[in-house]
Amino acid sequence: MKTLVIVSHPEILDSASQQFFLHSVKGFDDVTVHHLESAYPDGQINVAEEQALLNSHDRILFQFPFYWYSSPYMLKKWQDEVLLEGFAYGEGRRALYGKEFGLIIMIGINEREYQAGGSERFSINELTKPFQAMAHKTGMTYLRPLAVFQFGYMDDEEKTETLIKYWQLLTMKNDHSLETREEWLINRLQKAMTGNSDAELTQRIRFAIQVIEENRQTIDGLKMVLEDIRRP
Amino acid sequence: MKTLVIVSHPEILDSASQQFFLHSVKGFDDVTVHHLESAYPDGQINVAEEQALLNSHDRILFQFPFYWYSSPYMLKKWQDEVLLEGFAYGEGRRALYGKEFGLIIMIGINEREYQAGGSERFSINELTKPFQAMAHKTGMTYLRPLAVFQFGYMDDEEKTETLIKYWQLLTMKNDHSLETREEWLINRLQKAMTGNSDAELTQRIRFAIQVIEENRQTIDGLKMVLEDIRRP
Repeated sequence: MKTLVIVSHPEILDSASQQFFLHSVKGFDDVTVHHLESAYPDGQINVAEEQALLNSHDRILFQFPFYWYSSPYMLKKWQDEVLLEGFAYGEGRRALYGKEFGLIIMIGINEREYQAGGSERFSINELTKPFQAMAHKTGMTYLRPLAVFQFGYMDDEEKTETLIKYWQLLTMKNDHSLETREEWLINRLQKAMTGNSDAELTQRIRFAIQVIEENRQTIDGLKMVLEDIRRP
Repeated sequence: MKTLVIVSHPEILDSASQQFFLHSVKGFDDVTVHHLESAYPDGQINVAEEQALLNSHDRILFQFPFYWYSSPYMLKKWQDEVLLEGFAYGEGRRALYGKEFGLIIMIGINEREYQAGGSERFSINELTKPFQAMAHKTGMTYLRPLAVFQFGYMDDEEKTETLIKYWQLLTMKNDHSLETREEWLINRLQKAMTGNSDAELTQRIRFAIQVIEENRQTIDGLKMVLEDIRRP
């Protein structure tokens, strides 16, 4: 599976959260990061190139800071100009049909304000309906979004947890079963091991994989026992 | 009351519906029409001028075609760049506080598709939450929006009905009581009479106003009778 992360941020170098997440996936060979404002500093989008990029990926993600309860305008321009009738919807070919779509939104305000009675009044689920409608119209499966609230106030543990969720949205298949999550984690750990010359780290990762696999064997064993009990 | 209509449409001269509505309000002295793409052909928005324009009006309307369940990107750019912290929200002055805000949206697809089970899945009310949230954040009263579905397929009567709704959203005070609607209509008719040299038309309008006023006297009389009946 190949993932395209379309990032829109007018001042990305000044954004600690954007830098943190984007830096973390530099080695991922199945992920393409595409920052619109860097690619098109004059704002003139190459529509054919953008459509080719979409065609060559299976999962499309939009990553942006929440500006007026939506994306920065450059991503809106991209939608208006790239997702044309005859390409993304309408009679004939629907180029995005069957792909997966997700949102990664950086939000400066506390999560609790996004509800009735809060300063922002509506939930992220309500405010992102236009993107959900876009996924529906183009035939893409809408994934659970990742909303990152107040990254600047997070401690290291919260940042690490958020980073793992970010990596999952970028690279894990859309199935949150225990098996899928374990398989994904082992795969990521093995990738981290190759190309790493630190012997101690490699040893630790190998040990972590061993523990995960043993746990899975235990769970598989318990499942067989359960099935025996259920059998009439 | 002064009304500012901020229009966003990248090819406004090609849009029959935009031309129809905008042409109809050319004589309205309490309405300012401001088309962003004409005002800023190079896309560089004059923030100070836009903020001054907002300050000098009481009702702010956004008028645009529905592109990907939102406005064209130029209006998003306007939001991102003009509605700054310290002007539109945040500590200190909130320049838009107490004003009214409304949407006029031109939609090419049949209204029935905007619901669960329809091709667009979500209602206009759901899809415009980001604008509702903006009105809330800036302290503006959100008016009932005007969604114009498939203008091109309307007959003359439907177009006239829609035009009256449009004029109401632009100029009628936000109170849909019978009195307000009558007062608004008489006012509009009197304006149509002045500056019109056609004697027959003037006579007809004068007659229409007379009928409306007589109806109102009848209703006032009936109300007094009702109050008498209710009195213990």
